[in-house]
Amino acid sequence: MSTSAQIGVTGLAVMGRNLARNFARNGYTVAVHNRTAARTKALVEEFGSEGDFIAAETAEEFVAALERPRRLVIMVKAGGPTDAVIEEFAPLLEPGDMIIDGGNAHFADTRRREKALREQGIHFVGMGVSGGEEGALHGPSIMPGGPKESYDSLGPMLEKISAKAKDGAPCVTHVGPDGAGHFVKMVHNGIEYADMQLIGEAYQLLRDVAGYSPVEIAEIFRTWNTGRLDSYLIEITAEVLSHVDAATGKPFVDVVVDQAEQKGTGRWTVQIALDLGVPVSGIAEAVFARSLSGHAKLREASQGLAGPKAVPLGKEEAAAFADRVEQALYASKIVSYTQGFHEIAAGSEEYGWDIDLGAVSSIWRGGCIIRAAFLDRIRAAYDARADLPSLLSDEAFAREIAGAQDDWREVVIAAVRQGVPTPGFAAALAYYDALRAERLPAALTQGQRDFFGAHTYRRVDREGSFHTLWGGDRSEVSA
Amino acid sequence: MSTSAQIGVTGLAVMGRNLARNFARNGYTVAVHNRTAARTKALVEEFGSEGDFIAAETAEEFVAALERPRRLVIMVKAGGPTDAVIEEFAPLLEPGDMIIDGGNAHFADTRRREKALREQGIHFVGMGVSGGEEGALHGPSIMPGGPKESYDSLGPMLEKISAKAKDGAPCVTHVGPDGAGHFVKMVHNGIEYADMQLIGEAYQLLRDVAGYSPVEIAEIFRTWNTGRLDSYLIEITAEVLSHVDAATGKPFVDVVVDQAEQKGTGRWTVQIALDLGVPVSGIAEAVFARSLSGHAKLREASQGLAGPKAVPLGKEEAAAFADRVEQALYASKIVSYTQGFHEIAAGSEEYGWDIDLGAVSSIWRGGCIIRAAFLDRIRAAYDARADLPSLLSDEAFAREIAGAQDDWREVVIAAVRQGVPTPGFAAALAYYDALRAERLPAALTQGQRDFFGAHTYRRVDREGSFHTLWGGDRSEVSA
Repeated sequence: MSTSAQIGVTGLAVMGRNLARNFARNGYTVAVHNRTAARTKALVEEFGSEGDFIAAETAEEFVAALERPRRLVIMVKAGGPTDAVIEEFAPLLEPGDMIIDGGNAHFADTRRREKALREQGIHFVGMGVSGGEEGALHGPSIMPGGPKESYDSLGPMLEKISAKAKDGAPCVTHVGPDGAGHFVKMVHNGIEYADMQLIGEAYQLLRDVAGYSPVEIAEIFRTWNTGRLDSYLIEITAEVLSHVDAATGKPFVDVVVDQAEQKGTGRWTVQIALDLGVPVSGIAEAVFARSLSGHAKLREASQGLAGPKAVPLGKEEAAAFADRVEQALYASKIVSYTQGFHEIAAGSEEYGWDIDLGAVSSIWRGGCIIRAAFLDRIRAAYDARADLPSLLSDEAFAREIAGAQDDWREVVIAAVRQGVPTPGFAAALAYYDALRAERLPAALTQGQRDFFGAHTYRRVDREGSFHTLWGGDRSEVSA
Repeated sequence: MSTSAQIGVTGLAVMGRNLARNFARNGYTVAVHNRTAARTKALVEEFGSEGDFIAAETAEEFVAALERPRRLVIMVKAGGPTDAVIEEFAPLLEPGDMIIDGGNAHFADTRRREKALREQGIHFVGMGVSGGEEGALHGPSIMPGGPKESYDSLGPMLEKISAKAKDGAPCVTHVGPDGAGHFVKMVHNGIEYADMQLIGEAYQLLRDVAGYSPVEIAEIFRTWNTGRLDSYLIEITAEVLSHVDAATGKPFVDVVVDQAEQKGTGRWTVQIALDLGVPVSGIAEAVFARSLSGHAKLREASQGLAGPKAVPLGKEEAAAFADRVEQALYASKIVSYTQGFHEIAAGSEEYGWDIDLGAVSSIWRGGCIIRAAFLDRIRAAYDARADLPSLLSDEAFAREIAGAQDDWREVVIAAVRQGVPTPGFAAALAYYDALRAERLPAALTQGQRDFFGAHTYRRVDREGSFHTLWGGDRSEVSA
């Protein structure tokens, strides 16, 4: 058994297998290992010609095959299985070795694991990997956390296998300590949910309000994809909408059951945002829209509820409306990313990660599901001002949204009037209007809370906390 | 030391003290105990004339003072302090004794504690108590969970000290096993958040769009309080809005800082709903609105963002608009409660609690913050059909919302056009329109997921899971 592998991958389901192949194709010698050895064998038999693999049957062989400091990538299911693999390998490693978890772990688990392994001198790197099977093979967007020094030796390898942005920059950076990488990957997925929901609403409006067919809508998305909305998700939306079901001759989108599924990272994004006190209404509405769609009985029981049925516009009006929808989609997208980056900033602050938001937008420009021209704009915003209070504070975004907001409003109004649900567009607009509001009804909320629970309030004209004796003479006391 | 106390209360901060007094005022002998004995002494000195108290200095004295089976109410802070008190008292108790946690525990903690104590033969009752200090003293709404048999002996006492609905029914019931009581209390608070947010939006619209002063708006709320919106929160809203700040002569609501605070149960309600897959967009928007209001820097940085400034209506139009706002508020309220009761039903299903939703609405009719005539309507809906798929499936609610929905839409349209944020109204309407939609863009979402992640989809015309070979000839395969 040679000890020349620069990296090892254990867990050879499709993501692990493709990541191992990616390393091998880039000239690295890769030790591969799987709980059931048949999978290891199959990999080497099928793809052995792509590069240098060392097949290891046992954990001991696997560890022995790795150059020191060892770099051991775990690609197994998040949760219990990840803990089990760590428990298996950690005793075989030495101080300075690295365990890299490329699964979809919750960042809190990553923090816990990093802390435990640090005490043994092992570097634990929680690494977000986006791009699915294809990305893992041809170049994913990679979000490693963990100790900074681990990136010195691991970083160059990741930069080699990662996706490259159009300007050639590798889509990987050291995001921050301990759980920062998995945290950022989680928010990436939350933003992906929001993007998909907004695209869905745009589609529904183009169909029900504008009266276009799926194929016509695919053409509209193709046009949008040549402009500022240029992105992977817009591109594949056009592909899906133009696809015709062979069995029925109907548009593919019409033969698919309209109940969306989800795996959990969108939900986590909202749950963590709630803990951090960050309003992520656009992401939340996207998660809720998926769960609502799946409540078949509830939907069936609601079919008789009163409301308008959309009446499609005429040809000329439809084209003008489509332009407005593009504005609404773009403006809502700015808000989604504003909320997502706010969450990353808040997480970074809470956990002392010191995350570079510009670098995050930069590594999302290639390889991952939300890759888009738009991310160049975000990067430019943070390059211009690293401590931007919010994306909406960037002059260029503010100017674009100023140009979009009349149409954005008209689109939400049309949806409300015609009874087409646009929770994402509407939530984004309400967020925008709330942020720019001079006064919010939160003052009334504070008054109510003081009335029923003596929770106190602050005054606009002097420091301190106050309570009104609501049950008495209603004089004010300092609290 | 006599052993004649029928109930004991440990933790004599204001809630515990008032609950102890409530028991004593209702003829029970109450053992009282506090970590620092001074508080116990103060209670007996100040309120000893209200009934029979037995002041216990030590944990042993306290337990010894209780009739068997012992009923020991803990009124301390949720989390660590509750665990500490349980650890202190459990070893002193005998099988059949009861520990009743009247704090704001997370239901998952209550489940854990109930399970641990059950093994020692001790009945642990997680008990939600709503109504604040005043409620605790004069009659709260009480939501006990825990073992059914504990209610046989505890229930009659709780029925005596609880609030009574207008029809005389006590506002307490055995909600269900283990954590059911605290779960229902949590959702109660989530609904309370939503109610308060919707009231806030109505206020803002009446102020900015209709052009009314706070005092005029207070009058409108007073009128609403004589109709179907009759409720404690509407009543106190009128009180808060009509209050004038003595120091400045300005409306009170204008001198309060418009940054709302929160304690956590609203956030939990949304987090748990996400775990359960229940869309609670109205409650989520209420929680987000509070957190958004508190981001002072972000709001300040957003003051220059483009958008309309509301232009108040004329007198006559204003009155008509106010009527529409009442419709919008009522319809949105129906949706909030629909979402909240959906969450309770889902929790009941998930944890096998078998919660009677009609009974829950019934015990919220008095004592608690969301008490309202409206809850009689909900109770009637569940009385008519216990397995109602959703409140919106109730004929009476469906009819009311049918009558309200044109106005509801007009109000949201006015808000969007005039730039007044109404996240709650808009989210409720989008939920309503999504539920009644024949098709949702979730079909497109599934198509996208199949495209980028091979997540498969179902077809409307036959059973099974399918995948389209997007990267190949785009034929369909069974998955």
